Amino acid sequence: MKQTKKAAIQGGGGSNHEIAAKAYFNTEDIEMVECNTFEEIFSTLKKDSSVYGIIAIENTLVGSILQNYTLLKDSGLVIIGEYKLRIKHQLLALPGQSIEDITEVHSHPMALAQCAEFFKQYPHIKMISRDDTALSGKWIRDNQLKGMAAIAPQLAAEKYDLEIIAKDIETNKRNFTRFLIISDKGKIEVEELLVANKVNKSSLVFSLPHSEGSLSKVLSVLAFYNINLSKIQSLPIVGHEWEYMFYIDLVFDDYNRYLQSLDAIRPLTKNLKNLGEYHVCKRSFDTVSNDNRSLSEQKTF
Amino acid sequence: MKQTKKAAIQGGGGSNHEIAAKAYFNTEDIEMVECNTFEEIFSTLKKDSSVYGIIAIENTLVGSILQNYTLLKDSGLVIIGEYKLRIKHQLLALPGQSIEDITEVHSHPMALAQCAEFFKQYPHIKMISRDDTALSGKWIRDNQLKGMAAIAPQLAAEKYDLEIIAKDIETNKRNFTRFLIISDKGKIEVEELLVANKVNKSSLVFSLPHSEGSLSKVLSVLAFYNINLSKIQSLPIVGHEWEYMFYIDLVFDDYNRYLQSLDAIRPLTKNLKNLGEYHVCKRSFDTVSNDNRSLSEQKTF
Repeated sequence: MKQTKKAAIQGGGGSNHEIAAKAYFNTEDIEMVECNTFEEIFSTLKKDSSVYGIIAIENTLVGSILQNYTLLKDSGLVIIGEYKLRIKHQLLALPGQSIEDITEVHSHPMALAQCAEFFKQYPHIKMISRDDTALSGKWIRDNQLKGMAAIAPQLAAEKYDLEIIAKDIETNKRNFTRFLIISDKGKIEVEELLVANKVNKSSLVFSLPHSEGSLSKVLSVLAFYNINLSKIQSLPIVGHEWEYMFYIDLVFDDYNRYLQSLDAIRPLTKNLKNLGEYHVCKRSFDTVSNDNRSLSEQKTF
Repeated sequence: MKQTKKAAIQGGGGSNHEIAAKAYFNTEDIEMVECNTFEEIFSTLKKDSSVYGIIAIENTLVGSILQNYTLLKDSGLVIIGEYKLRIKHQLLALPGQSIEDITEVHSHPMALAQCAEFFKQYPHIKMISRDDTALSGKWIRDNQLKGMAAIAPQLAAEKYDLEIIAKDIETNKRNFTRFLIISDKGKIEVEELLVANKVNKSSLVFSLPHSEGSLSKVLSVLAFYNINLSKIQSLPIVGHEWEYMFYIDLVFDDYNRYLQSLDAIRPLTKNLKNLGEYHVCKRSFDTVSNDNRSLSEQKTF
């Protein structure tokens, strides 16, 4: 008998993390392990290596979630996949109310910020910051709180018998979040992917000493090996003021060639760390294109 | 008689934007033009070109403030300077109260999020999301609200006669924000800086078509011209799924050589736009080093 998969998510059931987990594994038959913080996801995976972790890593509006990069880098866990989700915010409340009945809206600060424009029409509604979107809805249901609303995904409305009293209230519709699927069994997962010839992306972190053109050299070597990039971000290392850290995502067709390129750039970098090798998300940040294009058509530079 | 300088800031007096404005211009004699939103800063500058704008552009914890990059890129205004500020959060309330008296804390969602750890000890305190840090303090003072606190800088405490009831409550002390000083009189400012031989940094935005090694080529050309980088960030252009946008900061010693390098990379890029030429902030992201090192020691790659 096949065991039900378990996925550790930040926040409660009904959150975008649960939506991403189910979409990535393409099944409803997956048990959510609810964690209060991203740190708790990492410690859960370390205690039980059969559990997968789902973590938001970047968003088209706010950029990279740097804290999660740091946790990942320091954890020893690896990325085994990615999923890109269009984020929509719904206003949920106990059934039978309208927005005029609402005096407080509770949600995660990011969700509150992303719906600020909508609430300008309702200055009598207090915006209250909480740890999670979906759990704000659960709290309203559990305590049968009239006059209170939560900003959360539609899945939370279904889960907690709440009514959507305002739909898609996010200011900017071009709001996509990229989630990483992480695991403590990285090696086994990668071997499975390799057998299926499905590894075509990896995420690296490294630092570079202060020296003229040091990044240019690394990128030139990768180009010589026909390795493409789909992300690059530099960060100053606070406390080490002459050094930078770089997060880059590589996309490639030939796994062996990719391994050779790592050997070739290692001497040019410092503390090169492979955060994981996985298969490119078929879904693009664009709402329209949801088809399965060939790798050579994936966006890279 | 010399006119008093005016600086448009986001939020109210006493905010980090005011602190950055005064520190950059190295004077207390500067009039703040308070704006509710970053959009309002840009429209203020377009109406009155004598006003400078101060906008937060990146933070060591949350990364780039992408929305402000977009506003800047579309505005036609230019960067004339930068300032890097260590962010500290104070808990402010009407005098004579202790934290046990507080039932609600009001601030900007980012400040609430950055102090979440502190408030875990006080689960009875509701965290309420507002447009601005300092203005939350002003609102408490104006309405003489006991039991309410605001998260804001020390300057707001001085300005609104509030007491600091908990000091430096930010979870992470390595919290620095880089502010840009923007202006509608970019050309005049740059000419003044050029005369003083003080232009040694610039910010560019461009896109690259999907083609192998396209970024590597641009960086190689810059390296040939001895131009260093101090920042690079790629962003997928939502809606144009095979294209990326890049924000890069260049640092250089020789202004003419820099101009030549722009001509050299232009044919390799698309929509290359110069967001401004200015003088590197002498202050580093590090709290310790506040000395005026020579440019060649500035952090670059």
